[in-house]
Amino acid sequence: MTETQPIGVFDSGIGGLTVIRALRERLPAEEILYFGDAARVPYGSKSPETVIRFTRECLGFLLRRNVKLLVVACNTASALALPVLAGSLPMPAVGVIEPGVKAARERTRNRRIGVIGTEGTVRSGAYRRTLEQGAEPARHEAADAVLVFEQACPLFVPLAEEGWTEGEVPRLAAQRYLAPLLAHEIDTLILGCTHYPLLRGVIAEVAGPGVALVDSGDETARVTQARLEALGLARRGSARGRCTVYVTDRPQRFREIGAAFLGEPLESVAVVDQSDLPWYER
Amino acid sequence: MTETQPIGVFDSGIGGLTVIRALRERLPAEEILYFGDAARVPYGSKSPETVIRFTRECLGFLLRRNVKLLVVACNTASALALPVLAGSLPMPAVGVIEPGVKAARERTRNRRIGVIGTEGTVRSGAYRRTLEQGAEPARHEAADAVLVFEQACPLFVPLAEEGWTEGEVPRLAAQRYLAPLLAHEIDTLILGCTHYPLLRGVIAEVAGPGVALVDSGDETARVTQARLEALGLARRGSARGRCTVYVTDRPQRFREIGAAFLGEPLESVAVVDQSDLPWYER
Repeated sequence: MTETQPIGVFDSGIGGLTVIRALRERLPAEEILYFGDAARVPYGSKSPETVIRFTRECLGFLLRRNVKLLVVACNTASALALPVLAGSLPMPAVGVIEPGVKAARERTRNRRIGVIGTEGTVRSGAYRRTLEQGAEPARHEAADAVLVFEQACPLFVPLAEEGWTEGEVPRLAAQRYLAPLLAHEIDTLILGCTHYPLLRGVIAEVAGPGVALVDSGDETARVTQARLEALGLARRGSARGRCTVYVTDRPQRFREIGAAFLGEPLESVAVVDQSDLPWYER
Repeated sequence: MTETQPIGVFDSGIGGLTVIRALRERLPAEEILYFGDAARVPYGSKSPETVIRFTRECLGFLLRRNVKLLVVACNTASALALPVLAGSLPMPAVGVIEPGVKAARERTRNRRIGVIGTEGTVRSGAYRRTLEQGAEPARHEAADAVLVFEQACPLFVPLAEEGWTEGEVPRLAAQRYLAPLLAHEIDTLILGCTHYPLLRGVIAEVAGPGVALVDSGDETARVTQARLEALGLARRGSARGRCTVYVTDRPQRFREIGAAFLGEPLESVAVVDQSDLPWYER
């Protein structure tokens, strides 16, 4: 491995661009290859078997492109597929669950943590499991225990993609979804889906100033940076790295909607036929 | 072909159950095989090439099961894939576009027709094209001309699947989506997505009493009945026909949410591996 190799970022669709945005703030010189499975998005409503099968194919594509580190930006794939696949990967892999959990555990005061995400992420129980066992199981103690309250918010992804990120509709949806969590007096809320940072304004407003929001994408960028530096693989230099996007469908739509997620225009978007993806298995 | 063969119904997901509901009201003795591509739903945001590829695979599954007639319940697949595939099918096929268009043309008085559907259906222009050329192109005359106003409503599918079919959120969403159509003084509105009948109440309330709603699913059931009777293939008898559901993912979710779409409990739901689907090509 050398520092000039690219970082591979995988997501089920467009949401992972919020993770790239955070990565590029911390690691501007890195070259990034992004793979978005737009033909089969969303993963959030699908079964573990299906999510694992799709993830194997998408990782196969990135692995052939010689990436030095893999970021699984999709919460659903991090929850369902990464635990199964990580052990056999030939390079380090960072999911979005652990970084978000670590930050939430550091920030909570009353030890009551809320998690919002897709149906698949919530059903997987991955956040709950990881939160309850602590980021470092060896140091797990009773005093360390947290209470976890989870809520699936299926309307948030289409709201973010529609660009309905302000006003009555997202506010009422947020009120309805967050009410049960707020009734449990959470003081920390994990945004457990890469689309949700676009709704951060209404979520913060509804949650109120007493609730700290944790953006899994931000935390994942922080962990990725630390991991690369520890391995001596962080890329130096002042030139801004390229970001190349591969999608399995509709590159034009990705280009149009993607800028709001990435925070800058997308330079290069290429299509890959989903039925030609290599199957990754070791 | 004999009347005892089943009818095959294909949909990208769960919405087509509203078409089955209408079919079973008119043709209770028919045996129905339903195929829902839940692993790759939704089709509405995907490209024509991808929708055609997925549809080929799903129809291949139903064709091997000896169906006497095929109903393409998915508006997106009817719009994008059926025109390409219909000519080569070995049995009659009914899509949901023409029946809805025919009913809308009969009902409008001021010849201003609105269409709501998924992004894919609207982008395809299929409703507009079919409405503008009339159901019978040979009889097309200037006096027959209609004005068509279309609107994609991406929030409606997740609202229906969430069961948020009443109250403020769907009403505000409907107001926002329908406002441009109402400004054009439509007097007829085609519900061009199989999920939308679940939101019929709020849509009717927002549209007002001056707008006639056309449910493509109802009209498709009517056309299917007429077609079977004309071919001498309608099944007689008083015994209620079986309805067997095949899905490419998450049968349990289908069973839970499906009853609201079908209007009765689902008896039999089986899973089919999407990667084993036969490719239909002639």
